[in-house]
Parts: sequence; C-alpha cells; structure tokens
Amino acid sequence: MKISGVRIVIVGGGSSYTPELVMGLLEARGLSVDTLTLVDVPAGQEKMDIVADFCRRLIKKAGSAIRLETTYDRKGALAQADFVLTQFRVGGLAARAQDERIPLRYGAVGQETVGAGGFAKALRTIPVALELAKELETVNPNAWLINFTNPSGMVTQALLRHTAIRSIGLCNVPITIARTIAKALAVDPEAVSLDMFGLNHLSFVRGIYVNGQNITSLVLEFLKNPQTAVANIPDQQWNAEVIGALGMVPNPYLQYYWNPGEMVQRQRQEVEAGRGTRADIVMKVEQELFADYRNPEQVTLPEALMRRGGAYYSAVAVMLIESLALNQRQEIIVNVRNGQALPELPEDSVVEVPAMVDGRGAIPLTCGPMPASVRGLIQHVKAYEELTIDAAVTGSRQTALAALMNNPLVPSEEVARYILRDILQEHAAWLPQFA
Amino acid sequence: MKISGVRIVIVGGGSSYTPELVMGLLEARGLSVDTLTLVDVPAGQEKMDIVADFCRRLIKKAGSAIRLETTYDRKGALAQADFVLTQFRVGGLAARAQDERIPLRYGAVGQETVGAGGFAKALRTIPVALELAKELETVNPNAWLINFTNPSGMVTQALLRHTAIRSIGLCNVPITIARTIAKALAVDPEAVSLDMFGLNHLSFVRGIYVNGQNITSLVLEFLKNPQTAVANIPDQQWNAEVIGALGMVPNPYLQYYWNPGEMVQRQRQEVEAGRGTRADIVMKVEQELFADYRNPEQVTLPEALMRRGGAYYSAVAVMLIESLALNQRQEIIVNVRNGQALPELPEDSVVEVPAMVDGRGAIPLTCGPMPASVRGLIQHVKAYEELTIDAAVTGSRQTALAALMNNPLVPSEEVARYILRDILQEHAAWLPQFA
Amino acid sequence: MKISGVRIVIVGGGSSYTPELVMGLLEARGLSVDTLTLVDVPAGQEKMDIVADFCRRLIKKAGSAIRLETTYDRKGALAQADFVLTQFRVGGLAARAQDERIPLRYGAVGQETVGAGGFAKALRTIPVALELAKELETVNPNAWLINFTNPSGMVTQALLRHTAIRSIGLCNVPITIARTIAKALAVDPEAVSLDMFGLNHLSFVRGIYVNGQNITSLVLEFLKNPQTAVANIPDQQWNAEVIGALGMVPNPYLQYYWNPGEMVQRQRQEVEAGRGTRADIVMKVEQELFADYRNPEQVTLPEALMRRGGAYYSAVAVMLIESLALNQRQEIIVNVRNGQALPELPEDSVVEVPAMVDGRGAIPLTCGPMPASVRGLIQHVKAYEELTIDAAVTGSRQTALAALMNNPLVPSEEVARYILRDILQEHAAWLPQFA
Amino acid sequence: MKISGVRIVIVGGGSSYTPELVMGLLEARGLSVDTLTLVDVPAGQEKMDIVADFCRRLIKKAGSAIRLETTYDRKGALAQADFVLTQFRVGGLAARAQDERIPLRYGAVGQETVGAGGFAKALRTIPVALELAKELETVNPNAWLINFTNPSGMVTQALLRHTAIRSIGLCNVPITIARTIAKALAVDPEAVSLDMFGLNHLSFVRGIYVNGQNITSLVLEFLKNPQTAVANIPDQQWNAEVIGALGMVPNPYLQYYWNPGEMVQRQRQEVEAGRGTRADIVMKVEQELFADYRNPEQVTLPEALMRRGGAYYSAVAVMLIESLALNQRQEIIVNVRNGQALPELPEDSVVEVPAMVDGRGAIPLTCGPMPASVRGLIQHVKAYEELTIDAAVTGSRQTALAALMNNPLVPSEEVARYILRDILQEHAAWLPQFA
Ligand SMILES: [Mn+2]
Ligand SMILES: [Mn+2]
Ligand SMILES: [Mn+2]
Ligand SMILES: [Mn+2]
Repeated sequence: MKISGVRIVIVGGGSSYTPELVMGLLEARGLSVDTLTLVDVPAGQEKMDIVADFCRRLIKKAGSAIRLETTYDRKGALAQADFVLTQFRVGGLAARAQDERIPLRYGAVGQETVGAGGFAKALRTIPVALELAKELETVNPNAWLINFTNPSGMVTQALLRHTAIRSIGLCNVPITIARTIAKALAVDPEAVSLDMFGLNHLSFVRGIYVNGQNITSLVLEFLKNPQTAVANIPDQQWNAEVIGALGMVPNPYLQYYWNPGEMVQRQRQEVEAGRGTRADIVMKVEQELFADYRNPEQVTLPEALMRRGGAYYSAVAVMLIESLALNQRQEIIVNVRNGQALPELPEDSVVEVPAMVDGRGAIPLTCGPMPASVRGLIQHVKAYEELTIDAAVTGSRQTALAALMNNPLVPSEEVARYILRDILQEHAAWLPQFA
Repeated sequence: MKISGVRIVIVGGGSSYTPELVMGLLEARGLSVDTLTLVDVPAGQEKMDIVADFCRRLIKKAGSAIRLETTYDRKGALAQADFVLTQFRVGGLAARAQDERIPLRYGAVGQETVGAGGFAKALRTIPVALELAKELETVNPNAWLINFTNPSGMVTQALLRHTAIRSIGLCNVPITIARTIAKALAVDPEAVSLDMFGLNHLSFVRGIYVNGQNITSLVLEFLKNPQTAVANIPDQQWNAEVIGALGMVPNPYLQYYWNPGEMVQRQRQEVEAGRGTRADIVMKVEQELFADYRNPEQVTLPEALMRRGGAYYSAVAVMLIESLALNQRQEIIVNVRNGQALPELPEDSVVEVPAMVDGRGAIPLTCGPMPASVRGLIQHVKAYEELTIDAAVTGSRQTALAALMNNPLVPSEEVARYILRDILQEHAAWLPQFA
Repeated sequence: MKISGVRIVIVGGGSSYTPELVMGLLEARGLSVDTLTLVDVPAGQEKMDIVADFCRRLIKKAGSAIRLETTYDRKGALAQADFVLTQFRVGGLAARAQDERIPLRYGAVGQETVGAGGFAKALRTIPVALELAKELETVNPNAWLINFTNPSGMVTQALLRHTAIRSIGLCNVPITIARTIAKALAVDPEAVSLDMFGLNHLSFVRGIYVNGQNITSLVLEFLKNPQTAVANIPDQQWNAEVIGALGMVPNPYLQYYWNPGEMVQRQRQEVEAGRGTRADIVMKVEQELFADYRNPEQVTLPEALMRRGGAYYSAVAVMLIESLALNQRQEIIVNVRNGQALPELPEDSVVEVPAMVDGRGAIPLTCGPMPASVRGLIQHVKAYEELTIDAAVTGSRQTALAALMNNPLVPSEEVARYILRDILQEHAAWLPQFA
Repeated sequence: MKISGVRIVIVGGGSSYTPELVMGLLEARGLSVDTLTLVDVPAGQEKMDIVADFCRRLIKKAGSAIRLETTYDRKGALAQADFVLTQFRVGGLAARAQDERIPLRYGAVGQETVGAGGFAKALRTIPVALELAKELETVNPNAWLINFTNPSGMVTQALLRHTAIRSIGLCNVPITIARTIAKALAVDPEAVSLDMFGLNHLSFVRGIYVNGQNITSLVLEFLKNPQTAVANIPDQQWNAEVIGALGMVPNPYLQYYWNPGEMVQRQRQEVEAGRGTRADIVMKVEQELFADYRNPEQVTLPEALMRRGGAYYSAVAVMLIESLALNQRQEIIVNVRNGQALPELPEDSVVEVPAMVDGRGAIPLTCGPMPASVRGLIQHVKAYEELTIDAAVTGSRQTALAALMNNPLVPSEEVARYILRDILQEHAAWLPQFA
C-alpha cells in the first residue's frame, strides 16, 4: 500500500450513505485517493448508477482527480482494494421493517440494532459478511475491511473470530457525542477526549476532557436538562436521578434498555397512527434522497441526509482511513477485539473503546475496570452477542433461543420462543443456515 | 473448639425453623452437641418460649443430653459459641408482605429474595447482620457464623467484605435437588454429586453424577416433563425447548427471571383473590405451626413444616457443622467468597458453588468457566448485588437506584425510581442509614 | 467400570517400583482388584519376569485373588484397563546418567527432574508418553492414566494439552511431607491437611492443619532445625533465615534452586570420588533389589527399597485409585490442569495442588493467589516447562534453546547453547523429532 | 496549568544531566517554558551553581526567555511546579560504587539498576522519593512528577502505590532503540513505531514498524551482526542463535540476565586493572563535564556527555512534557501502572509499555499476552521488584531477603544473605528504616 494512491471499495455502493462518504474523502486534506469503486448486486443497479452519477458531480465540483468506478465483480474489486467499506443490507429495508414489527407483536422493542430486531438482522447479515471476508482473505489478505454494517459490533466480532482479515467496526455515536460537546463549548474537535467504553450501542462516557481538563461533572449537570439526540432513535431526555446515579453519559441507545415499555408504546402508536416503523420512515427519506441525487443540478449534499441519521458517519470513516493510510497516530473510538481493554469481558469479544490508530491498525487503550453500575448489563449483552454470533454461524436453533433469552429487551422465555419462531419462518429466505 | 462439646447459638431462635434444626442435630451421629442457645429480641419472647419448650420435648424424646437455653443477652451468647446460626427477619413477616406488594404495584415481581423485594430485604437486613458480626468479631472471632438469613448470598457477601468473621452462607436448594435425584434413582444421597454453580437463587446444575457416572442427559430428558418444586415458589414446569437450549438444570428461582410477566400475573391474582402474597400464606402456616409447637403432646415435627418451605434446611446445616467441627472432608454447595472459583465474577463476590469443607472451613472448588447461556445473567445479577450491598452499607440513594436499575426483574428506570421511593418511605423505620 | 473388579495396567511393569505398588494394592481394604497387567518392551523381559514372580509371591502370601499377568501387547492391555499407571524410562538409567553428567560439564546442576537434566528427560519422554496416550485414546478413552513418569508435571501437561485422555500426575513429595508431620505429631494421617501449591518439584506448603487447627508456625520453628529428607536428593537442612523470610515449607527440590553452586560442587565431588551420579547409585541399588526379588524366599519388600527413593509412592497411587474407583471424596495433592486454581499461571498449565478426587476425577481446589516470595520463581519455571513441552512436541531447536534459557538452573545463554548441543548430539537416538 | 508559561522544577538540579535537558527544552518548538527551577540539597551547592551558570549561557545563546532559578527550598519550589523532574542520587556516586562492589565480592553482578546493586539503590532511594512525593501531594497534588531516578520502574511503582501523585517513569532505552533504527534506515523518527513491552531495563521489542510496515525480521537479521549499544553498559553483541530463539530485540540490559558470569568477570577485571567500576568511570567523566561546564566559553553541550550515557534522555523528557502540557496525542514508551496492559503481571505493577500520552496523562495501550520465551523472566523480576519495594517501605529484613532470593542475578540464598548483610551494614546511614 503506497501512501499516495489509496484505492477504496464500497460494498453496498448503491447505498444512500455513499455520497456523504465521498464528500468526506474530498475534504480529507492529506489523503490522496486514487480510485473509488462502488460494488453492488445487479438488483441494485438503478440505485448504484444514480449514486455514482451524483458522486461524480461532487468530485468534479471539488476539482478532484478521484476516479469513481462501479462494478458487480466484487471479487475483482476486492483484489484491488486498500480499504473495503461495507454498508450492505441483507434483505433490504423490507427485512428491516419486519425486524421492527415481529418483536412489537409480543410487546418487545422492535429496533434495527438492539433487541430481537438486531438479533434477526445479525442472523441474516453475519453469514453474508463472512462470505465477503473469506473472499477478501483469499484475494487480498492485507486490505482493511472497515465495517459499518449493523449490528456493527456483532458483525465485526464475527469477522475477527471466523476469518483472518484485518477489520475495524465503526459507529457514528462516539464522534457525534464528541463533536456535539466541542460545538457546545466552541472548542476545536481535536481538543475533546472521551473516556468511553462498552459495546456498540451500549457504551458510556466516563470522562470528558478538553485539552486534558476534566469537564465531566459540567457535562453531567447539563445533561440533567434537555440535550442532544441521534436521528435514528427518538429524542431522549435523561431523567436527572438516573444521570446522578450513573455519573456517566449514556449512549442514546440506552433508552431502549432503561425504558423498554415506553419505547414499545411509542413504536406501537407510530404504527397504529399509520406512520410505520423507523424502516418505513427511512424508506420515505430514501425516496426523497434519491430524487435529489437524480437531479443533475444537485451538486451538494441534500438537506434530507440529516434526517437519514448518519451524522459524522463520513467524518469518522475518513479519520480512520487517514490514520491507517498515513500512519497518523490518532485516538479513535472503534469496535475492536477486546484483548484486555475491558478485562471483565472475554478477550475475543469485540468492544467499542478508544484505540490508538496508525499504520499498524487499531490498538485499544486499556480502559478497565468498568463501574458496577453498568458492568453487569454490558456483560449480559455481550453474552447475548456471543450466542447470537454462534447461532448465526452454526444455524443452531437451541443456541438462537439461548441468545434471545439473554437479550434484556426480550421480556420472557415464552416471548423469546415466539419471536424466534416468527423470525425463522418469516425470514427463512435469508436464513439458509437454519433450514 | 474441642471436638466434643460443641456449642451452638441460634440468633432468631424463636423462628419456626428452629425445631427442624434441633431434630437434625439430634440425628447427627458423630456430632456431640453440648449446648444449644436460642437468642432473640425481647419482643419475640412468647414465640421463643414456645419453640424452646417444644425443642426440649424433642431432645427428651431422643434421649439426648443436649442442654437447650434461651437468652436475650446476645453478646454473652456469642462469646460462648462455636457456631452461630442466623435466621432473624428484620421487620418480621409484615415487612416481607410489604416487600412483596410494593413491586407488584408497578408490574414488577414481588418476592422475598429476588427482584425488588429481595432488594428491600437486603437494605433492611445487611446493617443488622453486620452489627451482629462486628459483635462476634469482638467477643469471639474464631466462631463460625452460618448464615441462613435471606437474601443469603448478599448477606454473606456483606459479612465477608465488611467484617473479619468466618462466615458461610447456606440455602436448601442445592441439597434439595441432590436429594430429589437420589430419591428418584433410589441411590444413597452420598452417591450423588452435582456440578452446580452460580449465585444464591440463581444457580445451574451443569453436571449430575451418580458414583462418578455422568447422568446429566438422563435428568434433562426427565426435566422436559413435570418435575419437583420448591415450596417457597409456585410449582414450575420448565419448557422443554428452554431446557434443550440450556442443557442444564436451573434453580427453581429462575422462573422469576424467565417468566416475570406470568409470575406477576399469578401474584396479582392471588392478592386479588384475597389469598395474599406468600408472606400472608406463611403467616397462616406459622400460626398452625405454633399451635402444634404449643401442644404438649406434640413430640415430633408437625406435618405443616413441609408447607413452610425449608426442606433439607436442617440437613445441610448439620452436614456443614459436622464437617467443620469434626474435620470431615465433605463436598457441600455453599455460599463462599469466590476467589477464582468462577473467574468471570469479581474475586470478592460471594458465589454458590461446591466447596471442600473440613476443619479449616469451606474451600471452593474451581468451577469455571461458565457457559455463555447463563454467564451474562449471573454477572448482571452479581453487579446488582454488589451495588445493593454498597447501598445498604452507605445509605446512598444514588447507589440504591443504580442497583435497582440493574435488577433484571425491574422493568425500567422509571419503575426503579418509583419502587425505591416507596421502599424508602414505607420501610423508613428499618432503614436509618437512608435518613 | 464396575466398582468391583478393577483392572490395572502398569506400563513399564518391569520397574523395581512395581512390587511396592502391588503391596499397596494388597493393603487397600475397599478396593477389589481383579487383574494387574504388567506391560514392558521385549528388551525388558528378564526384569519383568523377575518382578512378576516376586509380585505373585506377595499376592499369594497376602491370600489375595488378584490375577497378575505380563504382556508385550501394550495396545491389547490398554484396551482392558480401568487404570493405566506409567513408570517407563526412555533410554533407561544410562540415559539418566548422561542427563546428570552433561550439565555438570558446564557448571550446571545435573539432576533427573529439575534443571537441564530434567529438560533432556522431558524431550525424550514426552513423545513416547503421547504415543501411549494416543493409543489409549483410540482403544479405551474412558480409562484413567495415572502418570508417575518424570518430569511428572511436564509429562502430564503434555498429555492434557495434546490428547483427550483423562490423566492425573503423581509425585510422592506431598504425601511424604504430610505423613512425616503425622508421624512426628503421632496423629492419624487423615487428620493432617496441607495447603500446598506450586509445580511438581517446585511447591510450597503455606499452611499445615491438624484437625483444622493451624500448626504452621510450629512446624516452621521446627524446620529451622534439622529435618526430614527425600531419598532422591541429598539431605538438606534449610537455613533458618530463609525459612523465616519464606514463612512456608519448601519442597526439598528447592535446594537446587536456592543453592545450585553448592549442589554442583557436591555432585562433582561424588563423580570425582568415583561414586558417580545419582543414576549410578540407583543402578547399584537396583542390582541389589533385583537380587532380592529373584530370591524365591523373599516374600516381603526388601529393605533396600527405602534407599530407592519412592517413599509413599504406592500409598498415594492407591489413595487415588480408591477415590476414582469407589467415588470416595478425598483431598489429594496431584498434578492437574490448573484452570484457575493458581490464577497467576496459564489455565492450561499443569500444577501440583490439592484436588477433591472422586469418581468424576480430580477437581482442583481454588488456592490462589500465590505469595510474591515464590510466585515469580514458579511463573518462571512454568514458562520454561511450557517451552520445553513445545520443543519436545515440535522438535524446534529454537524453542528448545528458549526453554533452556528460561531454566533458572542454567547459568547463561552460552551454557544453554552448549548443553543443548550436547543433548541433541548424545541423545540423538532418543530424539528423532529433532533430526 | 496554562498551556503557555510552563513551570518546571528539577529535583537534583545540580546533576550533570541538567544541561542536556535544558537544551532539549530550548529546542522544543511548541512548548513555552516560563520558569525552570533547580532544587538541590545545600551540600550540592557548588555543583548546582556551576550547572545553573552553564545553563543560563545555553539559554542566552538560544535567545530564549526561560527564567532559570536555583533554590534549596524544595517545598516552595514544588508548590509552583507544573512538572517536577527527579534525578537525585541518594548517597551520591560513592554509594553507587559500593552498590557495584558488594555483589562482586560474592560473584554476583554489580550494577547500578539490575541485580543486587539495583536492589541496594532501591532501598536507599524509595523512602526519599516517597518523602518528596508526599510533600508534592500536600502542596501541589495536580503537578506531574516525571521520574528518572533509577531504578526507575521500582521508584515509579513505589510512588504510584504509596502516594496519590501523578507520576510517570522514564528511561532512555526505548527512544534510543527507536532513534537508532530511524537513523539506520534514514527515516523520520516519527515514522518508527515499536511494539515493546516489559519492565524498565527488562523489555523486548516484539515488532518494529516504519509507517505501519512491519520490518521486524529485517532488524532481527541485522541484529545477528554487530549492533548498537547503550553507553551505561558494555558493548554487547547478541548471539545469533539467541536472537533466533527469541524473535525479538532485547533491551541491552538483558546482557546481565543472560551472561551474568561473563559480566562479573569483566567487572572484576576492570576493578583489578585499577579502572574501577562504572561508578568510578562516571566520576571521572563528571569531573571532565564539570570542568567544561565551569568554562565560561562553553556555550554548547560538551562532547563528554556522550560518554555519560544518557543519549536521548532529554528528547524523551521533552516529548512527554509536550504531550502533557499541550494535549498532544503521542505514543511514548513509559513506565506506568500496568492495569491490564500486560495481563500476566499484577495490575498495580509498573511496567514499561507504549502509552497514549495527552493532557490527561499516559494511558497504556493493551499489549498482552507476552510470549512464553520472556514471560517467566519478566514475572520473576516483577515479583522481586514488588518484594524490594515492600522491603524499602517497611524495613523488613525478611522481605528484603525474600526479594534478593528472587533476583535472577543473585546466585544462591547464601549469597543473598551475605549481600544483604553487607548492604545493611555498609549503607546503614542511608537505610534508617532497617535500623
Ligand atoms: Mn451505530
Ligand atoms: Mn434459599
Ligand atoms: Mn516426584
Ligand atoms: Mn534507564
């Protein structure tokens, strides 16, 4: 891998997220991208063509020399990549809509990444991700696979456990928290450090520093009042007593763990009111987005992207690629093999923690021990994740049931059995390993 | 401590459990008990006198020379003890009834030892147990404190963390499972070994052996059909798929973790039907029991004791005392400091595992690692227990809220806040540390 | 395996140790041995015949019905065994003599089990032990392999790491210490418990209890004066300051670690004085022993056995077989897979610790953490052992050198290189893996 | 701490090392040093005055505005410090000469930081360092104490265990290795990353990367031929087989562990030839240095400094101060609390590992597990260090003996006892804790 002339491959290139990523690469000063290859399945041709054309307009406007290509020859593309970015969606938004609806039937949270919805998505996605990774292992074992595909933590753990490729998982929540704080305090984003730990969508900010100065208690005081949200989940406002008991800033997804009943109620109301689940809303936003992308006059990112819910998604991806490609030493919060970063979790777990990233990869910083106030929940969910990955790989119905019984958002073993039955029936086409 | 002439002190001696324990001691062949001292608070005089008289009849009938004494001078009694057995109940059955009712108000399980009910009991009980232990530490540091007081695991953990006394916690569930299997297979109880691990009321039998022969799969097959129950909790019958997914025999209390909604419904029905909670039923059984105890003709254990729910309670206590007093090497499942018995739990946790017990004390056998199917739940509950003990000792409302938020039977942070508010208000008399 | 009718196979049955073992089995009350099969290589025919005849006389004199057979068909014998005992010696006493001499050339301790001598023995022995174990794995996977072959800890670790058989390693040092104390205090051996931990020939008694009473400081005071010895190594007398600094009773083999220079000097003097190394002495004792065994009048164990150096060797073997065969729960100090018994050592290490032995096998008791005063030495030697096993299995000269460089009795990397060169040259016939 | 206007205090300011450090601070671009205060004991007045005058000339020549002050009021100086650098020497070079000579009497390595010499230095130094740290704790708990005082790892461990101050320990070996490689390959020092782990003066480079490219095997091949040295210890040249067995680059101090006999011989020859020990040589170099410093014409660092043996000493100190003061995120190899960086060592050990350093402090990167080829030696030495610190703090002769018996460079318990006796006698004035 030469430092100049980086070649990037985006698997699921027809995704509505791609233009933002291209924009990020155009803004990356040090990084000199040679080729950007979008890969998708033939069924996604129309979307990929629209995205590619729009991206070429963005590139042109920026006066950049990046070459943008599209292909259906995944293997060929992988063989040439320095970086492979994955953002495919097995079963599309239709399957996601189902993931959200099945649990709701039994009074359980219906969400894309946590709860039984995330479980269903993991069962569908992990085998496909592994197939891709094994292909990469064969044709290009030194490439980096940067995984955005949700549930990002579980998919990355499956990749690191079952293949030899070099993979790092990303999520935009940590950078969103950091940038929100930087913005609020009007300081350089570089000045903010987060002492953050946990799992993807189950993490906690234990310390917040500006130029090394600990401002955690200041932020906690602020948090007890209205605060920032992540677009993918409803606006949350933490209860002041809860924040006081915790002494940490929770990942917005904690809302689901701490108020599942309320979340179920809201989701049901949305569905009953005809507004559908989050998947249905995203489908509408995507229509708007693609209308914008299709418009030949459109040479900037459309405003609707904000509602899509991927704030700073490209920012963190570009930071990561810069560090890896240019041997820049940056501290980035990523999903990596635990080792002993969080000693109360198994070594081969994937965790979401700060890592020192440079040309060698992402080396997690030591960040244990975890406070008792969240340690148990994190351990519980990690056991659920481990069982889920195992079930996704082996197709064992018993392991799948054990996994669901360990998900704190599944209210009983009875509900676990019903949900599992429905998932295996209704997603059968995507779950050949259980056939 | 001489091998002959063992002196036993029972704190909470007026308990309806005492006669069964006396019966056990009378049947212990090798053990020569010199004195048995019942200690209680003056308010319990009437009950203690009845129990003492009845026990003297049992002793006389057995032709034993054990001397049975009663006293309100706890410190004086402790100073003379080789073994101190605790079975006091802070706030009595009335407080227990409250523990069961408060959570039910908010749709949460109301139970004496698990869920928010066990939490309330821990807050009341731990300071009193610590006071007793510190007294013992002062007057008789080499005595053994054998703890039955529920929640037995948490109380024992508090004793071992905050005092220097020698303490072992007991529960009758493990021995009940072992004896039930021995009876079913018509083998000597000694022939049965259980590979059992976890926490008090949250444990699992991973292996069952008869004379070293592994019969686990046989028992699991049987379990998928109707099976034995523990009197303190409703008859449970495990779902066959759940047993298949688990591959282990669960402690009966798992019913609460796996079917909380159903348990809440049953408990509410009982209350609405005027039958009250378990505390109310126990109060009635106790009335019967005391009527029997009072009867001068009664010289055997009354049949109602079976409904009281302490099967094999005396058997395990006597086994433990024999091993300690006579340096008999027996394997007994007890609540002890973890060390590295279960390496995925903190070292200073108390766990319920097999231990080699002899004159030195209870040395836990190594029994890790735990299977992923239950590891996370056990870790989660242990974090809850750690926070609860901390709250009970410090009186920190924040820590108490963090504890309740970590109890898997408390459905949301909102419910946690309501239950905590009610407990602190309604049990204020028993919770001076929160004043 | 029926409880009556135990079938025992001794591999290396022509060993001079066999009669003592037979005597132990004859004295075991509860155990009913059906058949005892001696297996050896054809080259050992004469010795095996002598031993077998002598053992038959012992059996006859005891009025026992044990059938004693001899065979060269190892596989056939293994297929019928309940217990396989190994006491073979690859290369015989001649190779041992060489093991003792090579290190001495370079000023290093020359000993059969520790230092570079033990290293050479491990390289020769482990492949042969693994071959035997794999045979057993195939024909009789449920049999117990009880390993006496030295270096017992390393051989057992190799067996447990590289095969699936059930194996327990034994040494007579722990039982010798316990029995010596029992004799000195005139108490029942059953009354003595040792809190002992470490590795084979590198262990420490942290606590000594008689009927649960801690008498450690008493024994330590006594130790500062002359004390008992183990026949295989010269009489040692611990320095009082050393015992004071340690606060524990060291395994006699610690002499080598703490006074290597003095041991080398003594060994050299013996050789220069024409008395040879320990192997030479043992050869002479063996001649005497076989003369006695051959004598048809001899129907008791000859006195010379005491000088052979295997005190209580049969006692611990019989205890172990009884516990396993009769599901007796006994605490025995054995060489077993560590797990978390000693948490500062790798989980798949073999350690020498107390275990609860019954029909299921040997379950180690938790016994960590180790005191800093010996922790480091034990960890250092365990790393050496791990490397040695790895070298023995792979035949890697690099790993072999790394192993020797980690043996505290090898004074420099230069000496390590010379010794390794000599071992590989002079034992080449026994070390095909390095060819 | 404001980013501009950094105040640095050097305890032991009269050291010959001070001018190099001043030079480093003058060259640090981003860092704006306000005041530099040299603190020493009155007995060191002459040396401190010479050093201060020379440093002022250096500052003046550089056109810098740094104010350089001297004082004997340590407490007053500490109260004003942002950074405290320690380089005092308890007992001076005379005590060091003794440290080097005592072990040589008994055939053991005599060296300032490893072996029994380092042990003696630790006993003298730790109480003084703790006294200083407790003073800092009282007057200025947020200041950083950057420790150079040898044995740097043990002193830093004592500081972190027994006080609450913020302390980081430094050594110039890691940076020397990195810079030597950068120079050899003619690449920017920033491009080189070392995967290095272990303890101070007992560390290993497992991986060497240039711009993320792994060049370890290249360097190892080179190492099998003549290579670079560290001035404080004789030129070493690693044996090619040793490097092959290890697969890592050893810290130059490993020479002492792997060839103690040869090192003793060389040291004795030096002494017998009248050239004295290293301390004697350093005394001569210091005389030269002070002659140069005293010379009013001297406005550059004298050439003799190179022979003093502190290459890159100022470079690493300045890097560290920059990262801490300016919240620069740099990876620096430092001595820090282990936590789980090296999971096979105790959590509260100090280890020498890469850390991410910024305004918050030094956060160690995860870097376990250690290869078996060096794990045991490192664990052994860490146990020795732990015991030594304990002995230095408590003054326990028993613990001191246990420590020495665990030092791999002390050949027997007998020698340990003699050396300990001599140290306690001959350094009695500096060891009041043992009185
Ligand atoms: Mn995300
Ligand atoms: Mn119970
Ligand atoms: Mn032995
Ligand atoms: Mn150094």
